[in-house]
Amino acid sequence: MERLRLGLSRLRADAFLVSRLPNIRYLCEFSGSAGLMLVEASRSTLFTDSRYSFQAKEEVHGTRVHIVKHGLLQAAAEALLSLSHRRARLWVAYSPAHLSVAQMEILQIGAGKRVRWVQDDSSVEKLRAVKDADELDRMREAARVISEAFLGVLPKIKPGVTELQLAAEIEYGIKRCGGSGPSFETIVASGNRSAWAHARPTAKRLRKNDLVVLDQGAILRGYCSDMTRTVFVGKASRRVRNLYDAVWEAQAAAKAAVKPGVRAGDVDRAARSALKRHGLARYFTHSTGHGLGLEVHEMPRLGRGEDAVLQEGMVITIEPGVYIEGFGGIRIEDDVAVTAAGAVDMTTAPRDLLEL
Amino acid sequence: MERLRLGLSRLRADAFLVSRLPNIRYLCEFSGSAGLMLVEASRSTLFTDSRYSFQAKEEVHGTRVHIVKHGLLQAAAEALLSLSHRRARLWVAYSPAHLSVAQMEILQIGAGKRVRWVQDDSSVEKLRAVKDADELDRMREAARVISEAFLGVLPKIKPGVTELQLAAEIEYGIKRCGGSGPSFETIVASGNRSAWAHARPTAKRLRKNDLVVLDQGAILRGYCSDMTRTVFVGKASRRVRNLYDAVWEAQAAAKAAVKPGVRAGDVDRAARSALKRHGLARYFTHSTGHGLGLEVHEMPRLGRGEDAVLQEGMVITIEPGVYIEGFGGIRIEDDVAVTAAGAVDMTTAPRDLLEL
Repeated sequence: MERLRLGLSRLRADAFLVSRLPNIRYLCEFSGSAGLMLVEASRSTLFTDSRYSFQAKEEVHGTRVHIVKHGLLQAAAEALLSLSHRRARLWVAYSPAHLSVAQMEILQIGAGKRVRWVQDDSSVEKLRAVKDADELDRMREAARVISEAFLGVLPKIKPGVTELQLAAEIEYGIKRCGGSGPSFETIVASGNRSAWAHARPTAKRLRKNDLVVLDQGAILRGYCSDMTRTVFVGKASRRVRNLYDAVWEAQAAAKAAVKPGVRAGDVDRAARSALKRHGLARYFTHSTGHGLGLEVHEMPRLGRGEDAVLQEGMVITIEPGVYIEGFGGIRIEDDVAVTAAGAVDMTTAPRDLLEL
Repeated sequence: MERLRLGLSRLRADAFLVSRLPNIRYLCEFSGSAGLMLVEASRSTLFTDSRYSFQAKEEVHGTRVHIVKHGLLQAAAEALLSLSHRRARLWVAYSPAHLSVAQMEILQIGAGKRVRWVQDDSSVEKLRAVKDADELDRMREAARVISEAFLGVLPKIKPGVTELQLAAEIEYGIKRCGGSGPSFETIVASGNRSAWAHARPTAKRLRKNDLVVLDQGAILRGYCSDMTRTVFVGKASRRVRNLYDAVWEAQAAAKAAVKPGVRAGDVDRAARSALKRHGLARYFTHSTGHGLGLEVHEMPRLGRGEDAVLQEGMVITIEPGVYIEGFGGIRIEDDVAVTAAGAVDMTTAPRDLLEL
């Protein structure tokens, strides 16, 4: 909150209106699904509705809670209107990416003409990208949970089982291992379908000689992990082995490129160059990774040419992959913390090719 | 799609730009997580990115698929710009609730000044509210899945088990019973926590004499179910029984009020009046229900004074509840289809008070 308030003077704003729920959770711990937060220089207010009155009381400290009867936007607009009476202009920073056109109209009409709106893209997101010690603890734990849930499901990966059954087992394992749930819909894609980078699991049964991509994550005390492993049902051919080793090499190259001060795009380039040496660059159809934390996709993005600079305390995924239509796909993904000594693995599951 | 196009002339618009993903899925079956759809009078186009090129090919029929390299909004704006060259003005309908301020700026800049924007709140949502026979089949099946998943978990509801374990068992059961996953994060709230209408499950263990609220739903072929049951761990007291019967009576009264032509607010009033007769109206802190379909909350809302008129083919939840701080909460929720003959239950699980 203190660091955010420094941003107010940079933006020459009197207050932030925070509309994105994970940002609200970051600033005041409120985890409900309806809220707006007004951060002024010397106080802050959470607007939520009566469904969350008990919960807000329990979770929120250091921020006033205002339980709203009709319309959070209307209530926030009224608060701004009354603040604006004390001065000629009230400058309010908001994030244009996280208010709809319709919401903005309600705010503008309700807050009146003395309130002037300042666009602010990602002040809170930038703070969130760098994790403190408590956040790193939770994320290490979330990474451990998903590693364990994955290892627990290995005995069930065999011909005849459906993708959906495996996804269900993993999500069940997440909760059994202490997570509060999956951080995204678990991906299990087998055979040809493994070449879909974002396939949803289906009732398709695993067959012998299938590549199986399992992409899964856990939430623990609000924080996300995200891990992909690719396994082989049966004995892998030389071609599969070579592809796997190339992806693994690309992942290692990207991890080796991670340190504070390096540009995100350079980490992506390290992975891409490794795949290029194997003639596989064109099969790598997504970016190398992304930050994660309260959300499974956060800043920075580790894509081609990204200028964001890695900082100590960031947590990012490193997840190169190759996807060959008609043959299959391979992706290996770990969560790593950016430290002065380079990338430190948070994901604990082994990453060599498992033949099951 | 034909019914939506009738809306174009009503709005005096040349095209709809559809930005809400469930609306896109409804119109062209595409289920990916990134898309924009442009519906003109005689053709339609889906814009998505390269992650979804295989998937879009498989899912989408009757709509052109445009795989975009950089920025869906930019691509859609360019398409509008080129359409606008043929005429003085191109009127494009969009939903202000489903485009952010930032997205709208990109569209406006990219599409140029010949494109004029028309606000349209919910043309697609209104179509979605009335289900066709295939949709009703899927929803009946989704309701069956969640009923079975709930019945499967009953033997595990006993002192010592945690809320999280039960939530995990239910979500596992959903997939085992053929669902593709939960339609929202399963709620299991026991003891005092049952008085939180929207509690998340925690590591809290069930104890003897706890009320336990279980609110759960399944997705099946894209369509959602949503069901709440409240059970008692041990032998219920007279007070618990009386409260339960009052809620059940309120639910029955609301169901009896359902028929085509009735206002949504009248169904809500029927539930509220029943609770009022028992002196419990002030403990009923939310609305009586909501539509469901591709999303778990759709039109209509069954709240106080809502003017929406029920139509044959709508599917709605009926879910009155009472929440008494320090004592506990009770909610009973079923999915019903609106038919000429009144409300028809889709939820199959029994709704009498289970003592476990």
